[in-house]
Amino acid sequence: MVEYGAGTGVGLHRVLEPAGVLPQAALRLDTDPRIRPDEVRVRVERLNLDAASYRQLRTAHGGDPGAIRAEVLRIVAERGKMHNPVTGSGGMLVGVVDEAGPDSPLGLKEGDRVATLVSLTLTPLALTDGLARWDGRSEQVPAEGHAILFARSIAAVLPADLPVPLALSVMDVCGAPALTRRVVAARESAPVVAVLGAAGKSGSLSLAAARRAGASRVIGLVPTAEEQERLAASGLADAVVRADARDPVAVAAAIGEPADVTVVCVDVPGCEHGAILATAPGGTVVFFSMATSFSAAALGAEGLAADVTMLIGNGYVPGHAERALELLRSEPAVRALFTARAGADSAQ
Amino acid sequence: MVEYGAGTGVGLHRVLEPAGVLPQAALRLDTDPRIRPDEVRVRVERLNLDAASYRQLRTAHGGDPGAIRAEVLRIVAERGKMHNPVTGSGGMLVGVVDEAGPDSPLGLKEGDRVATLVSLTLTPLALTDGLARWDGRSEQVPAEGHAILFARSIAAVLPADLPVPLALSVMDVCGAPALTRRVVAARESAPVVAVLGAAGKSGSLSLAAARRAGASRVIGLVPTAEEQERLAASGLADAVVRADARDPVAVAAAIGEPADVTVVCVDVPGCEHGAILATAPGGTVVFFSMATSFSAAALGAEGLAADVTMLIGNGYVPGHAERALELLRSEPAVRALFTARAGADSAQ
Repeated sequence: MVEYGAGTGVGLHRVLEPAGVLPQAALRLDTDPRIRPDEVRVRVERLNLDAASYRQLRTAHGGDPGAIRAEVLRIVAERGKMHNPVTGSGGMLVGVVDEAGPDSPLGLKEGDRVATLVSLTLTPLALTDGLARWDGRSEQVPAEGHAILFARSIAAVLPADLPVPLALSVMDVCGAPALTRRVVAARESAPVVAVLGAAGKSGSLSLAAARRAGASRVIGLVPTAEEQERLAASGLADAVVRADARDPVAVAAAIGEPADVTVVCVDVPGCEHGAILATAPGGTVVFFSMATSFSAAALGAEGLAADVTMLIGNGYVPGHAERALELLRSEPAVRALFTARAGADSAQ
Repeated sequence: MVEYGAGTGVGLHRVLEPAGVLPQAALRLDTDPRIRPDEVRVRVERLNLDAASYRQLRTAHGGDPGAIRAEVLRIVAERGKMHNPVTGSGGMLVGVVDEAGPDSPLGLKEGDRVATLVSLTLTPLALTDGLARWDGRSEQVPAEGHAILFARSIAAVLPADLPVPLALSVMDVCGAPALTRRVVAARESAPVVAVLGAAGKSGSLSLAAARRAGASRVIGLVPTAEEQERLAASGLADAVVRADARDPVAVAAAIGEPADVTVVCVDVPGCEHGAILATAPGGTVVFFSMATSFSAAALGAEGLAADVTMLIGNGYVPGHAERALELLRSEPAVRALFTARAGADSAQ
């Protein structure tokens, strides 16, 4: 169903300049609302700007809402996508399917309310309302216009039974539990799983996914006494330990007997060596933090003579969004952690 | 045999400052020649400085051999290891085992001529000859002194049947064929394997390892007509194709039907998306290039909705050096490519 090699499924025909690059690398995309047979057009309702991008815009314009709004409009008009040229990041959007091409493999139909799970940096986007309803004061941007999804895009239908902000915050990290599940299930015997940064969104989902996939024991590592107490109370882990994830020796000591699978969900640099040291020979480390350094991981494992498999956390696993939402629904403890984190958002 | 968790096997007791960090992160190591039961002391014969480190030293001192020598002596005296504070890199050393502790798991005995396969940045080192025999004009440093190997160090006995520079250049990249072999052998059915940067050292070894591990077909991708001709003549690949590895669309077009396993041995940034696009759903990409960007790989796979497993190329796989040397011995085509690359070195 999905096209490879030829490259049409990835939206090459929407790249206006420079020719031949992928949409994410493009300076400018074609936002023509007429879709190809394998595309989907979405009527946009809301953009969720990437936090780093919004922060940069706010800082650059001294917090002036009008100037921030004008800048976003300018970027989208110029590039045909919301791709912040300074941060290189985008965000995601929520909208309603307007038209689904007959050859689209995404399984969407007209009227479906969806969230895009690929970055706005590669999504053709045209705005028509001048962002009149956006106050410029948060990364949540009410918007009107249209966006195009390719054959190889990812979009998830928003569930009717969950508040939209809650569903979005789950979808935002749904790759982590999906890959954790796959790695745990692939082990020959039930593994011990350690999650670094276990009280966060991706961490708590990964704990739940690991246990459900057959882990013999799940250990959560957190940095503070407060998180330790909260996670212990949730019952999501068999043991909750405390250490600074950037201190390899402290991490290894806190985990104790090394884990078979270690999942890194701590979004700060410098956690590679602790994760490696906490993992048994023949084990697997899954790095989900975007702060992971490739060379620190590669050289660290070599320097420690650690025979561990190290995975780059791929944000895409088929069915990841549905599975993560299902975890949230069936694990009240996960939902409670999410709701506590989201604060006011969860009430929307 | 190898100690984990407690951390003694990794040389923590040799760290003088700051306390509690791993030897690689340490400012200063203890070079006391008296070894612990799980350590090995090596009589140093030669240091091979990391190319980036030597280049920095030469540039900083305007190519003055005396000044370069003095700087290396100063670093080693101050830090107890050859850890270039500017580049952060080290190199490796060659020497003869002086004393092997009874509990050392490295399998070395007195008189063995070895190369260390862990970085000099974590190896306690003391020099005694003032580097008098070094002319300062290359990264090859004749030296006298001693070095300490920990339980979790990696050292390989130099083979008697191969020139030392040739053996060292094989050992330098021996992690790539070892991990390639493991990934290929673990597939349920014989995979198609593509190697990007296939005419280089790690690339040619990976091709040979993939074929020997049972690949159904091996494809080598190279950037130039000259390399294409050379690799085709070697017979190491079933097909040799040409493309700029930084151009995702060109890479996918050159590979054609996507590969089950893609091995990235190109040492330039920007090869992540091409490798992902050239890999079939359910396939594996192994990144060996230290120029790999973690976030480009993670976001790239997500942006392409690519269900591929992405591995960080761990430089350590047990038995990697012996296996790579065995490949070189038994595959004249690999040896010919290495010898052609090494140029004058191979005559030493």
